[in-house]
Amino acid sequence: MKTTAPKRTAILLAHCPDQQGIIANVTDFLHSNKGNIISLEQHVDGEQNHFFMRVEWELDGFLIPKEKVEEFFKTLIADRYQMHWELHFSDQPTRMAIFVSKMSHCLYDILQRWASKEWGTEKPIIVSNHTNLEYIAKRFDIPFYHFPITKENKIEQEQKMLKLLDEQGIDLIVLARYMQIVTDTLIGTYRNRIINIHHSFLPAFIGAKPYHQAYRRGVKVIGATSHFVTAELDAGPIIEQDVVKISHRESIKDLIRKGKDVEKLVLSRAIWLMLNRRILAYQNRTVVFD
Amino acid sequence: MKTTAPKRTAILLAHCPDQQGIIANVTDFLHSNKGNIISLEQHVDGEQNHFFMRVEWELDGFLIPKEKVEEFFKTLIADRYQMHWELHFSDQPTRMAIFVSKMSHCLYDILQRWASKEWGTEKPIIVSNHTNLEYIAKRFDIPFYHFPITKENKIEQEQKMLKLLDEQGIDLIVLARYMQIVTDTLIGTYRNRIINIHHSFLPAFIGAKPYHQAYRRGVKVIGATSHFVTAELDAGPIIEQDVVKISHRESIKDLIRKGKDVEKLVLSRAIWLMLNRRILAYQNRTVVFD
Amino acid sequence: MKTTAPKRTAILLAHCPDQQGIIANVTDFLHSNKGNIISLEQHVDGEQNHFFMRVEWELDGFLIPKEKVEEFFKTLIADRYQMHWELHFSDQPTRMAIFVSKMSHCLYDILQRWASKEWGTEKPIIVSNHTNLEYIAKRFDIPFYHFPITKENKIEQEQKMLKLLDEQGIDLIVLARYMQIVTDTLIGTYRNRIINIHHSFLPAFIGAKPYHQAYRRGVKVIGATSHFVTAELDAGPIIEQDVVKISHRESIKDLIRKGKDVEKLVLSRAIWLMLNRRILAYQNRTVVFD
Amino acid sequence: MKTTAPKRTAILLAHCPDQQGIIANVTDFLHSNKGNIISLEQHVDGEQNHFFMRVEWELDGFLIPKEKVEEFFKTLIADRYQMHWELHFSDQPTRMAIFVSKMSHCLYDILQRWASKEWGTEKPIIVSNHTNLEYIAKRFDIPFYHFPITKENKIEQEQKMLKLLDEQGIDLIVLARYMQIVTDTLIGTYRNRIINIHHSFLPAFIGAKPYHQAYRRGVKVIGATSHFVTAELDAGPIIEQDVVKISHRESIKDLIRKGKDVEKLVLSRAIWLMLNRRILAYQNRTVVFD
Repeated sequence: MKTTAPKRTAILLAHCPDQQGIIANVTDFLHSNKGNIISLEQHVDGEQNHFFMRVEWELDGFLIPKEKVEEFFKTLIADRYQMHWELHFSDQPTRMAIFVSKMSHCLYDILQRWASKEWGTEKPIIVSNHTNLEYIAKRFDIPFYHFPITKENKIEQEQKMLKLLDEQGIDLIVLARYMQIVTDTLIGTYRNRIINIHHSFLPAFIGAKPYHQAYRRGVKVIGATSHFVTAELDAGPIIEQDVVKISHRESIKDLIRKGKDVEKLVLSRAIWLMLNRRILAYQNRTVVFD
Repeated sequence: MKTTAPKRTAILLAHCPDQQGIIANVTDFLHSNKGNIISLEQHVDGEQNHFFMRVEWELDGFLIPKEKVEEFFKTLIADRYQMHWELHFSDQPTRMAIFVSKMSHCLYDILQRWASKEWGTEKPIIVSNHTNLEYIAKRFDIPFYHFPITKENKIEQEQKMLKLLDEQGIDLIVLARYMQIVTDTLIGTYRNRIINIHHSFLPAFIGAKPYHQAYRRGVKVIGATSHFVTAELDAGPIIEQDVVKISHRESIKDLIRKGKDVEKLVLSRAIWLMLNRRILAYQNRTVVFD
Repeated sequence: MKTTAPKRTAILLAHCPDQQGIIANVTDFLHSNKGNIISLEQHVDGEQNHFFMRVEWELDGFLIPKEKVEEFFKTLIADRYQMHWELHFSDQPTRMAIFVSKMSHCLYDILQRWASKEWGTEKPIIVSNHTNLEYIAKRFDIPFYHFPITKENKIEQEQKMLKLLDEQGIDLIVLARYMQIVTDTLIGTYRNRIINIHHSFLPAFIGAKPYHQAYRRGVKVIGATSHFVTAELDAGPIIEQDVVKISHRESIKDLIRKGKDVEKLVLSRAIWLMLNRRILAYQNRTVVFD
Repeated sequence: MKTTAPKRTAILLAHCPDQQGIIANVTDFLHSNKGNIISLEQHVDGEQNHFFMRVEWELDGFLIPKEKVEEFFKTLIADRYQMHWELHFSDQPTRMAIFVSKMSHCLYDILQRWASKEWGTEKPIIVSNHTNLEYIAKRFDIPFYHFPITKENKIEQEQKMLKLLDEQGIDLIVLARYMQIVTDTLIGTYRNRIINIHHSFLPAFIGAKPYHQAYRRGVKVIGATSHFVTAELDAGPIIEQDVVKISHRESIKDLIRKGKDVEKLVLSRAIWLMLNRRILAYQNRTVVFD
């Protein structure tokens, strides 16, 4: 493990209808401009005949200036293949808003990683419909924004949230056991940039109280699912899932206790994948280059 | 690992409304009659206030003769606590019928365990609605019974099956990827003695083609569930579940291939639990003393 | 999940050479004194012919007063069977000292559980040979004791630690990635009450830098092990182990990152088992009643 | 899942010191000759500065005739980058020899996959130092070769084996719980083409009776490891590992029973990876493109 500074890189995520020559053209574009490829992954969905790729290359030595990469790539490659694509730079870290309600396990797990520099992200902000966890924000010296929500004020409050998120330059929203359904406006504005953690292995036990549902069904494994938020409840593209075995000995309280450990890891793994630009969503599925 | 012959034992499985003194009375009943307890497990369902136990003791030295144990236990203990209970003897092994259709992975897994004496069971019989796997029965020198099933003859054929199962003294039916829904008559006759393997982590993906369903939902884990068969499809008490991680790289064909490995292990584990009298079903849940 | 106060209980952990009648006598002792058994687990080690048990019963209604239970049990049961045994009461929670050095992931995981009342323990104390994590103690308003350690002062410093631990009434020491080998004096004083987390699946990769060792060996799983600390390094009775799959894609840095998640969960699970009096150590193995 | 015949493809596995432009040149070589890339994976070992790749492309439409691909690739690409490389064609399936002794679980698992066409391989041959499993060969109508081995005849017998393997055109040897150490001659002749299954998670419990070792150490997980065979016992490059949780309740006999299930799956997964040309070994580690 070298302690030298990480190299400045560009990361391209792209997908398009499959055809011959895409990789050859992309790698030639990078190589002929002296871009050293750090990693390249591709995937072809054989059912949909659709092509996906992630490529990361060093900016140092790359002949195209950073501010021109987007324009050149668009003209020379992307338009030609009708690509959907995103370009990211490793020196522009993601700015994250963590939405919480009353449970602290996911929040602490996220903040510990931020505080110990595991993720290399900037200081996040916390948004909540309750004040229960405000003391944690204070402990970590993190801005905390309280938006109490009622049936009456929901739309109005979310407008204020949107304004805040925009002002703060937020590009990733993490629902860390946020016990409110977010509106289509928020979802539309942050398309494929809102990650939720659901406390079951979806599609089992959609909706409220999944551990109670799991207990009553008598399952022998419980799980958690991180997914992008879409208009339909708990139905967005799944990023990561994991499970833990249980037995008849476990009460509902035990399921909740054991499940929390799965939830926090599955959510943090999904965030890590987002921060490292490893996820492409397509037709309610994800391609995760891990 | 000693190579001495296993001891002859009696195994009691019982459940009843919880109250004080059950364990004390059962263990006193065994101890005062010089029954050496090999293992004892108990469970109290705190929600239902219901008591479950499994106790195994040596028959050699036990003062009550084997053929009288049932009567004595009933009179002295079971009636007093309104117990539901079963008594088994280790020298009376389970006789098993394996129901199959066209896929061989579960069948081979079961037969290998029988043939290598992993389970200590008698020779099973195979029942099928097709003849595709008859050659495997021949290879293992196992009786194979073919009952072709159509909409018209289903009830009639199942009557013949029931007759066969009765004549053969079958007390455990294993649906090893048997692609027919069995009727309520069979289910009623073999209540909590028919085990099915479903190729998903239930309750997700009930019914047909669960791997196709899983692929389309874009899940990141797939699984298998062994459960007792009840009148409602894929809704009986769950015995065992396990999962395997998948990624976007896996096609439906890969899911089927990977899933088969989970299916065969999850089914064989459930059979092992049944053979060792470790399962109690109660209100659509199981207590598994493993 | 009822919100009523948990019942006051007594928990007995005991082991002794196996013989007939132990369970019958223990349960009769409890039942005849109107002790309602909440749970009872037993285990017989067939190789060693050794008996283990854990039994928990309600104190309310129990005819023997709490302060007399120990004496009565000793005289009537324990002495008769040459038992090694411990008696605990649920209203006397464990007091825990957390030993740390520079890494925060295990510490945060523990403190979050304490702070969110997942464990129902009292406020712990933190002991460290460095001051790097003192700020976390401050954030959580927890006493932090700094004992800088050099070759020269090690024995002297540990004497001061022992004095502190005694004054604070500590009965569980958790080495949460504490990068010092503790002396035999501390180990002797807190026999089977010091839990360590080692960042490999022991007995593989004993000693320093296990992730580096794992990387060089090219393993496809890495893991973590919580165990009681004994005089021999990383060789004490194992409480809990878990693993995570890795691939060639992971660098040593990735192993460290992924491993941390396993470490913190495996350590916290071991602590939970200790707090709930579910572990018996015997001849370098553990019996874990979970 | 389409039922059309699989496409005829070429698969290239290659590794070499890392440098700019390799992917660009390889993909350009394929693209300019109208080779449609089915999948491409690459890996850079940052510590060793070494490059690995696997690329699979369709032969139909490829302008270079199948029998010339090797020569052209060598001249135009491989020599330029000092590559170590292998070229395989999907219509030339692997021929496999399965070495066994007395245990049948791995053998059955392999044969079931062959018989059900899961793998698309040709009929394998079985080699054994005992005759215990000859009846299985007969059941599956597979050639069985018996080479009884003593200290005295070991070298002589292995010479005969080598002759047989050569005559049969074997290119993959699977040690499916073969209880003999193979000699350096065999290892040298089939370098990185002999797969062994060891019944522990290596490097823990090298050598004989790993389950007994595991039991005595009191571990809470057991595992299995498939690896290439090298001159040093149980020390070759690891292909695949998996584990299963155990508890104090399991005897050595139980460990053996549960371990067998892990062994057979871990071995069969390694074989599948070999058959699909997904493994590159380098400096005692493997790169597994799965």
